[in-house]
Amino acid sequence: MAVCTVYTIPTTTHLGGSFNQNKQVFFNYKRSSSFPSSNNILTSVSRPYVITCSAGESQTIVIGLAADSGCGKSTFMRRLTSVFGGAAEPPKGGNPDSNTLISDTTTVICLDDFHSLDRTGRKEKGVTALDPRANDFDLMYEQVKALKEGKPVDKPIYNHVSGLLDPPELIQPPKILVIEGLHPMYDARVRELLDFSIYLDISNEVKFAWKIQRDMKERGHSLESIKASIEARKPDFDAYIDPQKQYADVVIEVLPTQLIPDDDEGKVLRVKMIQKEGVKYFNPVYLFDEGSTISWIPCGRKLTCSYPGIKFSYGPDTFYDNEVTVVEMDGQFDRLDELIYVESHLSNLSTKFYGEVTQQMLKHQDFPGSNNGTGFFQTIIGLKIRDLFEQIVANRSAAPAAAAKA
Amino acid sequence: MAVCTVYTIPTTTHLGGSFNQNKQVFFNYKRSSSFPSSNNILTSVSRPYVITCSAGESQTIVIGLAADSGCGKSTFMRRLTSVFGGAAEPPKGGNPDSNTLISDTTTVICLDDFHSLDRTGRKEKGVTALDPRANDFDLMYEQVKALKEGKPVDKPIYNHVSGLLDPPELIQPPKILVIEGLHPMYDARVRELLDFSIYLDISNEVKFAWKIQRDMKERGHSLESIKASIEARKPDFDAYIDPQKQYADVVIEVLPTQLIPDDDEGKVLRVKMIQKEGVKYFNPVYLFDEGSTISWIPCGRKLTCSYPGIKFSYGPDTFYDNEVTVVEMDGQFDRLDELIYVESHLSNLSTKFYGEVTQQMLKHQDFPGSNNGTGFFQTIIGLKIRDLFEQIVANRSAAPAAAAKA
Repeated sequence: MAVCTVYTIPTTTHLGGSFNQNKQVFFNYKRSSSFPSSNNILTSVSRPYVITCSAGESQTIVIGLAADSGCGKSTFMRRLTSVFGGAAEPPKGGNPDSNTLISDTTTVICLDDFHSLDRTGRKEKGVTALDPRANDFDLMYEQVKALKEGKPVDKPIYNHVSGLLDPPELIQPPKILVIEGLHPMYDARVRELLDFSIYLDISNEVKFAWKIQRDMKERGHSLESIKASIEARKPDFDAYIDPQKQYADVVIEVLPTQLIPDDDEGKVLRVKMIQKEGVKYFNPVYLFDEGSTISWIPCGRKLTCSYPGIKFSYGPDTFYDNEVTVVEMDGQFDRLDELIYVESHLSNLSTKFYGEVTQQMLKHQDFPGSNNGTGFFQTIIGLKIRDLFEQIVANRSAAPAAAAKA
Repeated sequence: MAVCTVYTIPTTTHLGGSFNQNKQVFFNYKRSSSFPSSNNILTSVSRPYVITCSAGESQTIVIGLAADSGCGKSTFMRRLTSVFGGAAEPPKGGNPDSNTLISDTTTVICLDDFHSLDRTGRKEKGVTALDPRANDFDLMYEQVKALKEGKPVDKPIYNHVSGLLDPPELIQPPKILVIEGLHPMYDARVRELLDFSIYLDISNEVKFAWKIQRDMKERGHSLESIKASIEARKPDFDAYIDPQKQYADVVIEVLPTQLIPDDDEGKVLRVKMIQKEGVKYFNPVYLFDEGSTISWIPCGRKLTCSYPGIKFSYGPDTFYDNEVTVVEMDGQFDRLDELIYVESHLSNLSTKFYGEVTQQMLKHQDFPGSNNGTGFFQTIIGLKIRDLFEQIVANRSAAPAAAAKA
């Protein structure tokens, strides 16, 4: 059964305005694949209207990405949307400070938009943005649920420049909705809506090294102020953000390298992709031999690597009482085209052709993290999500046929 | 050109007697594949004769196996000859204390037979059997050379029971000659005759643990006497036996396990197969990805192992200034049929069908070392030698054809 929804459009610009959902129209698309010839419903609508159709319940696949960072056009999202073929851009003609990114198939919304308190409000109440009390989980749940059900929503905008809540923007239900931010897995109701979830976990050592690079060397902050700002965030981070790891289908941990003794530069990274077992439509990536424990230094007679080289590790583990499969990459690639050598030894990559991961990485070699495990695993997760999406869609089209047969 | 050699046979039994080489007959087998019709050479021989023909020079392929042990029907040789299909047995009707083993394709001779001093002689001169002065390298060289050239020899027999030199036995040139003992790579001339060489290196810790088991628990020797006997052998062993390692194409090192902290039982073994690079007709075995460095614990979700499990390591290394490829197995198999799981991840095994290593191991599961790396790597080396043999033979038959074409 298809679900079509008719919305009236206010005469003002849709930014700042609000859509009024008038009526849901249900019809069986098996009887007629075209729009119903009887348009009496439509004629009853006096104002300009938009009709959004979904092929049934849960048309939109919802992906949660938790990370401790500002939202915005993160590299991960650019890699993800690139896998689906289109470039992600902010909504055309809308609020220039919108946090949303839209591509042909994917819409990425930033959960900061569900802040219930703006910068001043948080200051007054003495809560951080990490604190659930600064966020409106009821609205987050309602809007994600509506989008998942194929209904557009008027989502608020949190303006990262002004620190204020701007008028809402219209979000149409996409094929894939990514909710990115601090709390995608915090609220149990929102969590339930997720078809797949990712936690991007930057270790304190790496966060610190990165902040030193950016805030001290580039922005002139003092070492003390950087330390203080990290320390200040820590209690709320540990209380509200970090525990979401346990719910993630994949955790990407970014850690200092173990290839350089006592490294504190944070330039060479060790990245772990912790993949939960038993997740529907998701088969963990493995190295060489599924289920065993392996370490692999590809550098040698076939692949020459500059110091400190590259080391992969693979094996089963447990993580928050869940069975997981971990693939780890320590070190960085000297040449991106050599990635094909690594790619060819990984299995369950969900590529559509030999070398697709390498091709994606080469396409975006200017993106941060392209020479290490962050870019590599983000690209792989993009492919896994595409596969998950295609499996869900295939399963849905198979289901009515099976029901008809029965 | 084929080389035929005519020998007269003395009327006494060949054991203890000696063959007299009368004449070498050269003929071009391309002109006539049958024996020359003119038998005037033969009629000139008045006594009964034996004719041994070889298809050219170096018909016999010579393998050297160095090991610190008594010779005899070692497990390694039984595994090796089994790969060629026939069981190895002592020469029929000969000296019951012969150290020789003969199968359809393979003859294993023990280099103790080239002792120039018997037990009493060594005692009188104060030299051990390890000392080159107790061995006749001229005779060793002459006889191995003769066999390699397709000529039978009357090889002495060192009687391990009496400690005396018994009358010689006739050795016919086999397809594959294995010279096994303390000094196969000691003399440069003998070394030059080897088509392939193996050094079986039992570490002192394991030797000690084994001797404790055998000499103390089974034969009632004291711990002190065992220690003393090992210590007494050490200087000559280090001076004359150990340095041969550098010439070996493959070294099998038997070491204590690293899976059990501070293990001194010597029951669980770590076995390294150190394979020299660049040896003609020999491509080193590798694990998963040639030229990289890998550790692999196959135990996990697919293969359950009892304590302490199994760990494989693989990678390039240098050994006595030579480039080598090392495959290591630590631990032991719980069930031999699970070997197929390990076998399927090794490459360049020179098997003729999938699972041949496992089949060979199952066939001889009662042999010592069948559940660990000693048996596993010995079996693999057997297959590599078969492959080497077949390549040499194929190369030889191709060579005259190419010469005829040119």
